[in-house]
Amino acid sequence: MTATDSPESALSVRNLNPKVVEAQYAVRGEIVIRAGQIEKELKQGKQFPFDKVVYCNIGNPQSLGQQPISFFRQVLALCDYPELIKPAKANKLFPADVIRRAEEYLAEIPGGTGAYSDSRGADICRQHVALGIERRDGYPAEKDQIFLTDGASQGVHSVMRMLLRDESDAILTPIPQYPLYSATITLYGGTLLPYYLNEDQGWGLDVKHLDAQTQKARSEGKTVRALVVINPGNPTGAILTKQNLEEVVRFCKAQKIVLLADEVYQDNIYAEGKEFHSFKKVVREMGGEAEGVQLFSMHSISKGYYGECGRRGGYLEIINVADDVVGQLYKLASINLCSNVNGQICTALMMNPPQEGDESYPEYAKERQALLDSLKRRAKMLTDSLNQLEGVKCQESEGALYAMPRITLPAGAVEAAKEKGKAPDFLYCMELLEATGIATVPGSGFKQVEGTYHFRTTCLPPESDLQKVVQRLTAFHKDFINKYGGL
Amino acid sequence: MTATDSPESALSVRNLNPKVVEAQYAVRGEIVIRAGQIEKELKQGKQFPFDKVVYCNIGNPQSLGQQPISFFRQVLALCDYPELIKPAKANKLFPADVIRRAEEYLAEIPGGTGAYSDSRGADICRQHVALGIERRDGYPAEKDQIFLTDGASQGVHSVMRMLLRDESDAILTPIPQYPLYSATITLYGGTLLPYYLNEDQGWGLDVKHLDAQTQKARSEGKTVRALVVINPGNPTGAILTKQNLEEVVRFCKAQKIVLLADEVYQDNIYAEGKEFHSFKKVVREMGGEAEGVQLFSMHSISKGYYGECGRRGGYLEIINVADDVVGQLYKLASINLCSNVNGQICTALMMNPPQEGDESYPEYAKERQALLDSLKRRAKMLTDSLNQLEGVKCQESEGALYAMPRITLPAGAVEAAKEKGKAPDFLYCMELLEATGIATVPGSGFKQVEGTYHFRTTCLPPESDLQKVVQRLTAFHKDFINKYGGL
Repeated sequence: MTATDSPESALSVRNLNPKVVEAQYAVRGEIVIRAGQIEKELKQGKQFPFDKVVYCNIGNPQSLGQQPISFFRQVLALCDYPELIKPAKANKLFPADVIRRAEEYLAEIPGGTGAYSDSRGADICRQHVALGIERRDGYPAEKDQIFLTDGASQGVHSVMRMLLRDESDAILTPIPQYPLYSATITLYGGTLLPYYLNEDQGWGLDVKHLDAQTQKARSEGKTVRALVVINPGNPTGAILTKQNLEEVVRFCKAQKIVLLADEVYQDNIYAEGKEFHSFKKVVREMGGEAEGVQLFSMHSISKGYYGECGRRGGYLEIINVADDVVGQLYKLASINLCSNVNGQICTALMMNPPQEGDESYPEYAKERQALLDSLKRRAKMLTDSLNQLEGVKCQESEGALYAMPRITLPAGAVEAAKEKGKAPDFLYCMELLEATGIATVPGSGFKQVEGTYHFRTTCLPPESDLQKVVQRLTAFHKDFINKYGGL
Repeated sequence: MTATDSPESALSVRNLNPKVVEAQYAVRGEIVIRAGQIEKELKQGKQFPFDKVVYCNIGNPQSLGQQPISFFRQVLALCDYPELIKPAKANKLFPADVIRRAEEYLAEIPGGTGAYSDSRGADICRQHVALGIERRDGYPAEKDQIFLTDGASQGVHSVMRMLLRDESDAILTPIPQYPLYSATITLYGGTLLPYYLNEDQGWGLDVKHLDAQTQKARSEGKTVRALVVINPGNPTGAILTKQNLEEVVRFCKAQKIVLLADEVYQDNIYAEGKEFHSFKKVVREMGGEAEGVQLFSMHSISKGYYGECGRRGGYLEIINVADDVVGQLYKLASINLCSNVNGQICTALMMNPPQEGDESYPEYAKERQALLDSLKRRAKMLTDSLNQLEGVKCQESEGALYAMPRITLPAGAVEAAKEKGKAPDFLYCMELLEATGIATVPGSGFKQVEGTYHFRTTCLPPESDLQKVVQRLTAFHKDFINKYGGL
């Protein structure tokens, strides 16, 4: 049979690139698809024991009613419609610093938001990002080592694409992990080399374990190319100490391993006495001891208290990487022309917000503080409530937007899940959705220690809703335990 | 030597994924990088025989001063800053239909432009795209067969990722081609199977040649998975006839080959008596004769007369593809969460602009007509002038944004280029840049018939500038021919 008449020569799921079929992305997987169906059925009048779906599966605060930071949106509106600047001035529609800032971006970006920029991002936006990094760390940042990206995801794609040659290339990835990493490692044909965070020690990162996993993988013929660290943690909510970060840097230097720092939650810190330390700052402070450690640090406008998820903006900062490699990254970026300029501007605004003395500063500071205070209260309320459930233990949510409780499940539930060919925590999350309308992500979607079960929920519903979420979850949990024969 | 102390274990250009190193993207290649340097040197006061760089290398009209469509920007500004709606109403800052449209999007998109949407794009935006396709073709379009993407490039990436399993998978690609295709085929590890457009017949597409190339590739063990057709053509500017499109559809059906229709220039038609016909419409009109032909059609907000390049919006419409394959595409999209919502809204506006009777219609229609008339004049002026140069022959620019003249080069120039290890038309374009500030793309960047030389230039500089461009190009061309010993 020639290819001409083969039923296999057109596109079918049987002859798709198998890496695509293999890749999984639980944060928007089966449970979310079912949640969408339920939403439609609710609209059509079908009865459920709840009146709306509450999406706790993904950090998407504005979809749950969170209001944006006014300064960001005011500048963006003027950049998208510069004709408004004159009437805005005349009618005093915006604070003066909003207009100044929009005029600055419009003057510096040829063609404004409607033209392709440099593939790395517009110069002025990269300058503002560099300024923000300098303010954060107290060390200089170079605009030409910064690439603006459509969200942090695109940065991860580019770096994985460069690093992974075949399945003998391995990436040290935390377990539990954010599924962007498992998905991209699968798509680009590499191997996920797991390292397990220590749940009972607040999801701590043990460098001895990193080392042991690396040596084991090497003895099996793997090349360990990079280490992913997510700090503050997703899905864990844990914040790493500075001492821990220094150990990680030493490990990367000794083992000649590239460090991928996912720092997209850097602005969301709730735990008393905890602080965010960037890997960039740690590398600079360590001086010669960290010489040559190759670092890619990622940040995003989606994941801070500002939550500008739909805008798709972010950056990649590159440290200690040779110019010709950065040149290859530039070429990769150029194949996609550029990231969206509206998102670039928002990234610049995130890193260079109003400063004390600016007209918009009081309003900006007020909005920021209200969001952070509320997130902190919600994170605490959520973990406290979870810890009161039978068989549930939840580490403190020190930062980020999530709680990742460990759940002990009745043997009957484990058995029932196995019969359906599903993970036990998937069964839990699916029944939770059907009973309460609360969409979460099963721990199995993030990978976890064999034999343990978890789920991840965000703390993002507004405070009044979150109380109801907790009440419904509590009632469901009791019913579930009983239904499957108790613990 | 163990991997631990190998100098190869960190990231260097020697141990990068070789597919990344191999991929090329001439539209933003060496000549554009040099153009950027020249721009900086001009600012620093260095003397050149010109006072500014004119970027004719890429279709990026707003960077050259083209004004955006007001209606699009007004709606976008209100969607980004909904607080403006009330004062806008009170102060009559915007036409009523602008406000109604923004309110419609804000009501239908949960969280507006700040929240992740469905990974395929917000429902209302996909509905508006479907409506626009129906108006264009007279056949129904389904919103769930439409994926909104960050520009058309992302759609091409996703489809290539699904199609290409290894280098035995081949993609029929027009020569000359847009380098997005060669770059993505390289990155995803497939084989570019060339088919040559017939320059002397207005860059025509000969289906017999397609067939011959397919059979030849199959005899060499390749699986021909898809055919790329760019209509209107990039870089050629040619518009294919309906009869030609029908032949292509019959070929794809007979050979069970997926059809990738790059139709991003569909709104830019200049030649008298020429019309754009979408492949979707042709497939529907052919009825049973085209049954089962799998079509991916791509469109973009970057490339019409509106030229919203920096916004990164576009769509992929899918015809005759099984639901489980569409499901895989949905999963791929979900790994990147969603395309930027501001760009999604602009895509909806492009496909569903103001209609007769709407308050904004007269202004919209006026802006649109002025842009199209001017582009038409510029395309004609450019090709007419090029055809007056010694040894230059340029096919009519029937549509799109480009002219692709064939240039006969002096033997001395070919020799000089070879000595430098460069393509002869690269030498021409680089000397053109250094002498005039005009940035173009050498034909070799698009691939071309062996032994022929071309360059691609856009017709996008404003009309007053374009005259100067033509004058400078004419003077340079004469000097170049003389410098290298004449034709």
